[in-house]
Amino acid sequence: MDFLKKYNQVLQEYLDSAVAQKEPRQLYDPIKYILSLGGKRLRPLLTLMVCDFFGTDFKKAIHAALAVELFHNFSLIHDDIMDNAPLRRGQKTVHEKWDVNTAILSGDAMLILAYRFFENYEPQMFQELARLFSETALQVCEGQQHDMDFETRDDVTLVEYIKMIDHKTAVLLGAAMKMGAIVAEASESDKDKIYQFGRNLGIAFQLQDDYLDVFGNPETFGKQVGGDIIANKKTFLYLMAIGQGSSVQAEELEHLFSINPKDPTDKISTVKEIFRTSGAAEATRDEIEKYSMHAYSILETITISEEKREVFREFGNSLMQRNV
Amino acid sequence: MDFLKKYNQVLQEYLDSAVAQKEPRQLYDPIKYILSLGGKRLRPLLTLMVCDFFGTDFKKAIHAALAVELFHNFSLIHDDIMDNAPLRRGQKTVHEKWDVNTAILSGDAMLILAYRFFENYEPQMFQELARLFSETALQVCEGQQHDMDFETRDDVTLVEYIKMIDHKTAVLLGAAMKMGAIVAEASESDKDKIYQFGRNLGIAFQLQDDYLDVFGNPETFGKQVGGDIIANKKTFLYLMAIGQGSSVQAEELEHLFSINPKDPTDKISTVKEIFRTSGAAEATRDEIEKYSMHAYSILETITISEEKREVFREFGNSLMQRNV
Repeated sequence: MDFLKKYNQVLQEYLDSAVAQKEPRQLYDPIKYILSLGGKRLRPLLTLMVCDFFGTDFKKAIHAALAVELFHNFSLIHDDIMDNAPLRRGQKTVHEKWDVNTAILSGDAMLILAYRFFENYEPQMFQELARLFSETALQVCEGQQHDMDFETRDDVTLVEYIKMIDHKTAVLLGAAMKMGAIVAEASESDKDKIYQFGRNLGIAFQLQDDYLDVFGNPETFGKQVGGDIIANKKTFLYLMAIGQGSSVQAEELEHLFSINPKDPTDKISTVKEIFRTSGAAEATRDEIEKYSMHAYSILETITISEEKREVFREFGNSLMQRNV
Repeated sequence: MDFLKKYNQVLQEYLDSAVAQKEPRQLYDPIKYILSLGGKRLRPLLTLMVCDFFGTDFKKAIHAALAVELFHNFSLIHDDIMDNAPLRRGQKTVHEKWDVNTAILSGDAMLILAYRFFENYEPQMFQELARLFSETALQVCEGQQHDMDFETRDDVTLVEYIKMIDHKTAVLLGAAMKMGAIVAEASESDKDKIYQFGRNLGIAFQLQDDYLDVFGNPETFGKQVGGDIIANKKTFLYLMAIGQGSSVQAEELEHLFSINPKDPTDKISTVKEIFRTSGAAEATRDEIEKYSMHAYSILETITISEEKREVFREFGNSLMQRNV
């Protein structure tokens, strides 16, 4: 998709100049650092793409796109502290490279900087963007809190789990897309629809992430396959297997998710087997399909050309196939 | 000052309802908790007072006032983590009562909530308030970073120190007042002047805080007198004494600020003596006077009635005398 390259180039130029060399270095260097680690830039690209596809020069959406990317990276810095994560994109996390205090304060500054990008829009648009941004940012915090709460709870329901990934991941994808539509001054109805398209695709994407963590191809997945099982993470697959499996399977799963064997090979293969035989794997694939299909059905009702709709579909597909 | 009571009452009502019982509890309970610890509510009261004095119903400024108060408390939560502080207003800090992760995430949510209060204003005013807020919030982060950097530097200048307290403390007082003027739709000139009034008074206030930490009356100061000396904090007094004192005094000070005696009584009295005889105490009083007088001279040029100007003066005086 050639247009993505074009967006990416402009985005990178702005990102490089957005956080210029500023004092105090200890505050701004970590911001430059995390932004330099790259990543797919999925969210800001979606903002630019939607703006473009609604018939407005994508460069007009660059500030909104930067706000989204800065917010995303702010949340990575603070989440990495909370998760005690040593690595991010194969490099040291901010709190490892500097320290926790630096990571807290640089993250705070990054959240504020994100808001500042909206100042490039006139007041009406500024307010609409900042309002959506705040609402979304708060949901992301709530999602992160629920995710942490779930670690110590053994009564998490599937509905709660979906709500958690919706808040932690999906709403930001929806908001990133809606911001493109806001800048393009799309109709209220189209703004809402593109938001729901992104949000449903986001839930499908995150569920698939859980699925691929267990059943993915180690050569193409990009993360360690089985990582969630090793970490005893109660994903959708786990919750579904507990609910759908036999009581023997449920008991075995609960036991396996309470231990940390040095060599996790046997644990991983047993858990995979239970996920398959309990019907959890299939049920998860169905759920991914359900949210994807819902996203595409919303896409059908958006007032854009059939040609552009097809590109959104292709983009959604390549996202789900992890080619983006 | 009876009008302060009236403001305080309305402020408290709004604060109680502003952060209603929301889920997830682990995210919102710490926010309710820190707001319940009280404090002088100096900043939001200034917002309401300025709005009132510029001839607009102070209740119109309540959302801006709440944004300022939430931001201030957000910064307390995160600063307390960074300072490893066990107590805040005589109660456990958030990271002590819960944990560091909770304090990080609840602080983040609080910063976002602060922005949301501006949504109550129409777009033009929303943008003006949010822009000032972001600029100020970023300066507060920069001030906090400089404060932390200073701990490990031995070449901090007086100019750098003033800039640090300006950013860490004074700009928020200026911004709190300017927000009241923005809501009251005061002239651009008056908005700038009230900002400079607050900012200069803020620097005077913080310098006086440093001064009283050493020379204050233990019965009225409210904090432990000598606390900065015990903590080896290089305040304005210290930097001034190093610069103005003899080389013998400077050497002794540097030594005293590198040790942590179990009983600090002798250390405190020696440092006090050096602060006095080196001329640092007097020079600091002069500096406080300079910033206060500058604030009052700006006040003279603001287009409000002489009666209201007098109340600002009285308020400034009672602030400096720690009666507010």
